[in-house]
Amino acid sequence: MKPTVKKTPAKKTSKKKRPLILISNDDGIEAKGVNVLAKEISKFAEVIVAAPHTQQSGTGHALTVANLLRATEIYRNKKFFGYAIEGTPADCVKLAVKTLLKNRKIDLCISGINHGANTAINIIYSGTVSAATEATILGIPSIAISLGSFTFMDFTPAAKFAAKIAKMVLKKGLPKGTLLNVNLPPVPQNKIKGVLLTKQGKSDWNDYYDVRIDPNKRPYYWLIGDHVLSDKTNDLDHKAINENYISITPIHYDLTDYKMLNELESWNFK
Amino acid sequence: MKPTVKKTPAKKTSKKKRPLILISNDDGIEAKGVNVLAKEISKFAEVIVAAPHTQQSGTGHALTVANLLRATEIYRNKKFFGYAIEGTPADCVKLAVKTLLKNRKIDLCISGINHGANTAINIIYSGTVSAATEATILGIPSIAISLGSFTFMDFTPAAKFAAKIAKMVLKKGLPKGTLLNVNLPPVPQNKIKGVLLTKQGKSDWNDYYDVRIDPNKRPYYWLIGDHVLSDKTNDLDHKAINENYISITPIHYDLTDYKMLNELESWNFK
Repeated sequence: MKPTVKKTPAKKTSKKKRPLILISNDDGIEAKGVNVLAKEISKFAEVIVAAPHTQQSGTGHALTVANLLRATEIYRNKKFFGYAIEGTPADCVKLAVKTLLKNRKIDLCISGINHGANTAINIIYSGTVSAATEATILGIPSIAISLGSFTFMDFTPAAKFAAKIAKMVLKKGLPKGTLLNVNLPPVPQNKIKGVLLTKQGKSDWNDYYDVRIDPNKRPYYWLIGDHVLSDKTNDLDHKAINENYISITPIHYDLTDYKMLNELESWNFK
Repeated sequence: MKPTVKKTPAKKTSKKKRPLILISNDDGIEAKGVNVLAKEISKFAEVIVAAPHTQQSGTGHALTVANLLRATEIYRNKKFFGYAIEGTPADCVKLAVKTLLKNRKIDLCISGINHGANTAINIIYSGTVSAATEATILGIPSIAISLGSFTFMDFTPAAKFAAKIAKMVLKKGLPKGTLLNVNLPPVPQNKIKGVLLTKQGKSDWNDYYDVRIDPNKRPYYWLIGDHVLSDKTNDLDHKAINENYISITPIHYDLTDYKMLNELESWNFK
């Protein structure tokens, strides 16, 4: 017979510390996406935001090594909200984990909600994904979350899904070196068809440089273009959100092309 | 019996157009590595350099989208050398391919010779690798090449090996989406033990932020640290160069973690 030591799970739960969740992004600390996310996640966790002072889209995994970083404490409604950091998204996460919060155990990092999809080729350009990747490198389970539009501004479905998947990751964990890249279609909650597990697609940009002449007669160049959907099936991230599904892609940062590694054996490098 | 039409291979070769090779880097157009490389590659190819105006180490795959780019034509000994671009390494390659050289067929891109190894975790932070990756995305066979030291400055073995592997890639090609990441040990030619085909290693940085106080009493943060060799075997890139081998790692930019994709099937996202 089991000993009848009374354990009251309800009491245990009430005593249980709320998880500490670090939130970052690449659109900057004033962007709507990160603020809606922080509010939703605060319902079940302690949230600290460490986000760039200004918009940092397309920064990829840039890390500031040749210059200093600054961090300013930010308060919202007289409560501590986090840090506005004059650096890249990866800087924000690294500085928060290594220094600003170094005595705290961070249970999870969520980066987003990004304004615009981080699917297909965009993953490698994305500061939002890189912030989550940096947290992964530092041993923190991590999720990047993006909304596939620059104009549709209802972040509520994405924030609610972020909360759901955050709770799952807090419970189940993630393998070392793996993070989840989540993208939502730019539609209201009732138009979302479901969740698909996807691979990184092949969709790319049709882009070019607009060549302009400045008032001093010198040329300058400005990148312009459209993302073109070339993915054909719903098991690829960009096609999935295009079909109004939520896309979840597990990603990692082992870039080795194992197939080519075998083929290179036949090259003679001696 | 074969028809005896006279074909003079020597004459054919002399008529043959030299390949056009685009060279970039992340240390900037004045860095020694890129200049030694350009000189060596010019022995068998037409070389055009498109490199950042200034040092851009650690920029990862940053792409300038919210600002303009400038390009200045650079001449060396009265001959056209290339473009100094006020942008990131990926910007340099993209601007060169899409606009500055848009009427030319670029046969190969070589990015480097980087000052410092681009092995293990450094691959994702590296502007040099990202320049080569950008060329790959744009459909150009590409090689990133790095010398594993910031102080050992003999770039000749790396330049000679770059020429060798460039000729091989020009002949054999590379699969779409795959590039070669080459690292050399910081030793003279006669100390190099050979060439190893490797995987991206797991070695990481032991780093922290040095917290300093400025003359106005405000704190600032500066990243500092050492790369720590944790790879144990010569089939991993960082260990290979540490053992004085040249390391060649085929890499790609499909970040999908296929193993985790299977495991996620058991999570219930409904």
